[in-house]
Amino acid sequence: MARRLGKYTLAFDRPPRVISFAAVGGKKEGEGPLGNAFDRIFSDAYLGKDSFEEAESELQRQALTIAMSKGEITPDKVQYLFAGDLLNQCVGSTMGVGTFGIPQVGIYGACSTMALGMIMASGFVEGGLAHTAGAVTSSHFCASERQFRFPLEYGGQRPQTAGWTATASGAVLLGERTAGISVTHGIVGRVTALGVTDANNMGAAMAPAAADTILHFFEDTHMTPADFDLIMTGDLGKVGSRLLCELTRQNGLEISVCHGDCGLNLYHEQEQDVHAGGSGCGCCASVLCARILPSLCKGELKRVLFVATGSLHSTTTVQQGLPISGIAHGVVLSAE
Amino acid sequence: MARRLGKYTLAFDRPPRVISFAAVGGKKEGEGPLGNAFDRIFSDAYLGKDSFEEAESELQRQALTIAMSKGEITPDKVQYLFAGDLLNQCVGSTMGVGTFGIPQVGIYGACSTMALGMIMASGFVEGGLAHTAGAVTSSHFCASERQFRFPLEYGGQRPQTAGWTATASGAVLLGERTAGISVTHGIVGRVTALGVTDANNMGAAMAPAAADTILHFFEDTHMTPADFDLIMTGDLGKVGSRLLCELTRQNGLEISVCHGDCGLNLYHEQEQDVHAGGSGCGCCASVLCARILPSLCKGELKRVLFVATGSLHSTTTVQQGLPISGIAHGVVLSAE
Repeated sequence: MARRLGKYTLAFDRPPRVISFAAVGGKKEGEGPLGNAFDRIFSDAYLGKDSFEEAESELQRQALTIAMSKGEITPDKVQYLFAGDLLNQCVGSTMGVGTFGIPQVGIYGACSTMALGMIMASGFVEGGLAHTAGAVTSSHFCASERQFRFPLEYGGQRPQTAGWTATASGAVLLGERTAGISVTHGIVGRVTALGVTDANNMGAAMAPAAADTILHFFEDTHMTPADFDLIMTGDLGKVGSRLLCELTRQNGLEISVCHGDCGLNLYHEQEQDVHAGGSGCGCCASVLCARILPSLCKGELKRVLFVATGSLHSTTTVQQGLPISGIAHGVVLSAE
Repeated sequence: MARRLGKYTLAFDRPPRVISFAAVGGKKEGEGPLGNAFDRIFSDAYLGKDSFEEAESELQRQALTIAMSKGEITPDKVQYLFAGDLLNQCVGSTMGVGTFGIPQVGIYGACSTMALGMIMASGFVEGGLAHTAGAVTSSHFCASERQFRFPLEYGGQRPQTAGWTATASGAVLLGERTAGISVTHGIVGRVTALGVTDANNMGAAMAPAAADTILHFFEDTHMTPADFDLIMTGDLGKVGSRLLCELTRQNGLEISVCHGDCGLNLYHEQEQDVHAGGSGCGCCASVLCARILPSLCKGELKRVLFVATGSLHSTTTVQQGLPISGIAHGVVLSAE
């Protein structure tokens, strides 16, 4: 049974375990520092499909297929899929993993989707609502650019505060097991807005949300950053990471010693010209599945606080000049 | 503890109860057959805001505010909000109920969002993850038309198979109580596509999903339609409702005697010129809160199977000629 700690945190006493996971990515992601850690890299941006949107769907399908295969699980053994993405009306997930015939819970958390899906899947397993549940998400640079910014052909310039939407997907299967990486805590974030209106500076828009969730987590659990090998946010990038550490410091919490950000892990910062860092739902999903979970498996990491952040805007709200809200959801992953 | 019945259905043995609920709507909804049953009607399509999108957000905020007030609950007593809508990136929910500071789980199910939110909230309460949780959603005719079809000023003609997106919102609070309307079962749907590509005939695109969920529910529970006063879908409208009854009949299940559809309840069919019927997340959310739940409270209905359907397309997938998928999520509401 889950226990509520403090005001916002769930502690899972019979923690759901990671059964398997997979990360897939595009050419640029394959050339990054985690290139060899991906389960599969696609050099064709279309993945053999007719559009970038269908290509993004294929990324999700591939990630889940590989995760199921690694876990020796068939779709009929997965009771629920928690899936979402950045495309309007989450069509990446509908067209992608919707084809497996698994009961599907559409979730929306922008780039925080992976953590949100893991909390939901963990809660469902821990609460006795499912034996096995999956969390999956994706993003595609080309689909995202033309939806949120400009068609690629336009060749728009990107400011230094802008992130680079990852062409990637990650899938995690969780279940009732007695061994393996466990999800011991979950914390659902609150919508937070501090008045940022620049859609090319999402790190700044999301940092307050990350701070809110992280501060609440440590207050609720009475743990300290020293209890963690890594506090991994995603994807604040360069600008947002600096702001986050400053915001938590102002509130008496020093996290910079063990803080990392998925957006700063996926690409070679200088050579790959990604400005503020990686972003998009697929960024932290793939860093989770290509770096964090493998390191926990190998014992290189013991305990990680994984906090994924999302920027909750649309082109309409940005054009209307409305402030950009952020949200951050977190889970604790433990090797024990 | 929840039990799994058959392959897809959850039975809640310690069923979450409806604490309170509220429905708000626009002028046209106020002139419909449920006009007097709404908690509040707004004659101004902008609700005093600067844009239709902000107006939709205000609908959600109003619905939740009234529901909390009726339940004598303050935001800090609500552990989770499950909220989503049809606007790109679900900004209606972010800007709407995001302002209450309640941990927020973004969900996406198009017009099925209300039922999805109720399953999630019920599961979280039953699974011991929350004492109190809310489900809320909305739609706004003017925001939806310009996003999915044409700007209103264009004056586009609507085919007879098209629905009318409701300007409405519904909010339900669920919790651990011993009395009140209970949520006894929940069933999460699967993504279903039978090749419909006409975004002006969503009833046809969603009917197979509704049939899938309803057939699974009766197979899993060994109940029959005779166990229900009402099987209420939303929003298949005229076209989809006929198809649903035909599809279930072909599979040996006769539901037409007790079948109703939210899309056929919200407006006066002839006088209000809504063609196939009401649609949009706000339609079945407001029919639930203005008609179904009040009738259960009064004892006019004893047990209702509420199945909300969603059409999972975006303008991009429609323009690409891709088939429109549907999904349907269901809950059983019992007066006992």
